[in-house]
Amino acid sequence: MKTLIRNAAIVRGGKTENGDIAIDGAVIAAVGKAPEGWQADTVIDATGKLAVPGLVNAHTHASMTLLRSYADDMNLMDWLQNKIWPIEAKMKKDDIYWGAMLAALEMIESGTTTFADMYGDMEKVAEAAIESGLRAVLSRGIIGVAPNGEAAFEENKTLFSDYHGAADGRITVMFGPHAPYTCPPDFLRRVAEAAKERQAEIHIHLAETKGEIENCLKDYGKTPIALMEETGILQCGVLGAHCVHLSDDDIALMKKYDVRVAHNPGSNMKLASGIAPVPKLQKAGVCVALGTDGASSNNNLDMLEEARLAALLHKVDTLDPLAVPAHEALAMATENGAKAVGLKNLGQIEPGQRADIVLYDMSGAAWTPKFDLVSLLIYSAGSASADTVLVDGNVLMEKGEVKTLDKERILFEAARRAQALAAKM
Amino acid sequence: MKTLIRNAAIVRGGKTENGDIAIDGAVIAAVGKAPEGWQADTVIDATGKLAVPGLVNAHTHASMTLLRSYADDMNLMDWLQNKIWPIEAKMKKDDIYWGAMLAALEMIESGTTTFADMYGDMEKVAEAAIESGLRAVLSRGIIGVAPNGEAAFEENKTLFSDYHGAADGRITVMFGPHAPYTCPPDFLRRVAEAAKERQAEIHIHLAETKGEIENCLKDYGKTPIALMEETGILQCGVLGAHCVHLSDDDIALMKKYDVRVAHNPGSNMKLASGIAPVPKLQKAGVCVALGTDGASSNNNLDMLEEARLAALLHKVDTLDPLAVPAHEALAMATENGAKAVGLKNLGQIEPGQRADIVLYDMSGAAWTPKFDLVSLLIYSAGSASADTVLVDGNVLMEKGEVKTLDKERILFEAARRAQALAAKM
Repeated sequence: MKTLIRNAAIVRGGKTENGDIAIDGAVIAAVGKAPEGWQADTVIDATGKLAVPGLVNAHTHASMTLLRSYADDMNLMDWLQNKIWPIEAKMKKDDIYWGAMLAALEMIESGTTTFADMYGDMEKVAEAAIESGLRAVLSRGIIGVAPNGEAAFEENKTLFSDYHGAADGRITVMFGPHAPYTCPPDFLRRVAEAAKERQAEIHIHLAETKGEIENCLKDYGKTPIALMEETGILQCGVLGAHCVHLSDDDIALMKKYDVRVAHNPGSNMKLASGIAPVPKLQKAGVCVALGTDGASSNNNLDMLEEARLAALLHKVDTLDPLAVPAHEALAMATENGAKAVGLKNLGQIEPGQRADIVLYDMSGAAWTPKFDLVSLLIYSAGSASADTVLVDGNVLMEKGEVKTLDKERILFEAARRAQALAAKM
Repeated sequence: MKTLIRNAAIVRGGKTENGDIAIDGAVIAAVGKAPEGWQADTVIDATGKLAVPGLVNAHTHASMTLLRSYADDMNLMDWLQNKIWPIEAKMKKDDIYWGAMLAALEMIESGTTTFADMYGDMEKVAEAAIESGLRAVLSRGIIGVAPNGEAAFEENKTLFSDYHGAADGRITVMFGPHAPYTCPPDFLRRVAEAAKERQAEIHIHLAETKGEIENCLKDYGKTPIALMEETGILQCGVLGAHCVHLSDDDIALMKKYDVRVAHNPGSNMKLASGIAPVPKLQKAGVCVALGTDGASSNNNLDMLEEARLAALLHKVDTLDPLAVPAHEALAMATENGAKAVGLKNLGQIEPGQRADIVLYDMSGAAWTPKFDLVSLLIYSAGSASADTVLVDGNVLMEKGEVKTLDKERILFEAARRAQALAAKM
């Protein structure tokens, strides 16, 4: 199956050029001009469209879309203990599935092509990824101190053997120890061993709140990052979510072990967690990607908004208008994202890369005039201008219509199940 | 002309209730249930829609849409001196008009019904407001130290006599001395006199950057706010844009003279100006509204995004997740906006108020599930879900289509003129 995207404005290396994108199966064959004699089965006219690498949501909990707007504007522990955890405890496998389907719909519609997820009943999230056509990096969230800690650990092993490399490699699996404060060091050592045996990587929440750092220093005399070195977690290859409160020594350790950061500006702002030292991490050579976190702390899965927040937040935080310029924010959401979630040949529109591509319709007021297309995308456009989405060369959305999912049914089932869950509380 | 909006979810006092909105001419006659025997000429079915007071953009420079994406990610003075000011100097009346028309299109499409503008050639902006059906509060930006300072002052007087109260009161006029650092105290005294003679109010940039405060203290031994008291500006009634760097004494003065703040979180973040002490201002009882600032420092005129930024930024800045909750962010964008720009009977969906209303289509993924509609609007929805917009009871947009403007022509003319301007540089 050969596809030709014709006459797009293509983002390459933070700049844009006009040309075609030739796709052979799941892989980009050529960019700029199709190879001589190229016979496409499908031609997509991209006149007036901006072709961007598919956005990578490097940290989310997809099924939490079911809790969107259930509880907002609360103190963290009040929110978790009295609202989120009790309702999560009522969620069944079908809820996880329909929540993930709602997330898949929302992600495709807003230009996301890959998501890194951590939750329970992850085989249901895998199903949603397979059905929707999205690329997914899945981990079973393991709370070592919880009664189901060992069971969750076993489920993560099963998830790995059942789904790592599934769907022609579109699904990969990591281990998901939730956080240093919910998994004791000995537990983390066992997770690290299990990951190493399988050459699996780790997806973990790190250094999200000030309180976490203070407690970790009190309990172990080390920062969470240093503790993760001691337990062998850092040595596995780590996708670290949040990484808000970091010392210079932490950053040096992260660089040493190539920890990739999933920065979640929207969630960190909404939960008042703090501002991650992103320019400092970048200066140290640490890979910083972007994530939305779950919909209950965001409250959407809009990666374009996340890129905009990253570009804006670090300018005002450092009082430097040159911090995180538009092209860097886009790189965080695309090529850094791919690297952060452990995927190769992904995140750029270049020959040999996987054909994960979004076409944005540039016909609206927010895209006028067109002096700098990357600036327009990051600072002005809304994600509703995502028009066409491809993953592995397959068209998941065309002219704003998702082809792989039954939108009406998903909206209906998600709303119905969310109401039923809330009614139990 | 009587209009009935039927079966909407209506935002009242930060909460939502289902009902109808009966509109008689330009004014809301009843909310909840139409009066007995109410015969509507037009019925709008708002099933599945959220009715919100029209958003008020309390500080912008509409015609700067023509410079959208022309220059980004630069240091402030480099940006102003080498990019913005030189190209602005080339703008002719027709450029001002088409820039304002592009802004009007973008504002209507994103749910804004009132804008407070400061720029040059304001009769062209007035024309755009009149043609588009938007409500506008106009001021001629006067740079006292510029060669055209006196001429601009005269133009503001003419603007007042020609347009204050025009278009059935949809247009009002303020005086627009640009800022304390561009207008010397004696000049400001004369502006204050002229304003007082006409019972006009003042729209002015205040305390935007640290440098402004430092220079003002050095030159006059006072903060900009204190200097504005001394010159008589505060005594006129002031819409103060930015107000980022404020002392406790400044805040007390602002409260004393009922200065209304147009907070511009997007612009302040992008230009790295700093974070305005919004929770502190609110605690002191100062009215805080929201504005986008011009499109070259934002880069759009999306007031829903501005409300979201306000809700997120002050949480993380104060490390308080209860700061600026969703309903307060919405109030800032609506009823506080109306108060800030000096308009009465505006900003709420209540009997006796002007019928400026936005209906948001709640059918999409980002609106599912629906536990809290105001949370969904502020934290999750995109402005593209604005479906229907009314000003003074007139329908400016219906089902996403702007009725009062020729969209294709505006996009064409704005793009053409922007390119022509850039070609002169």
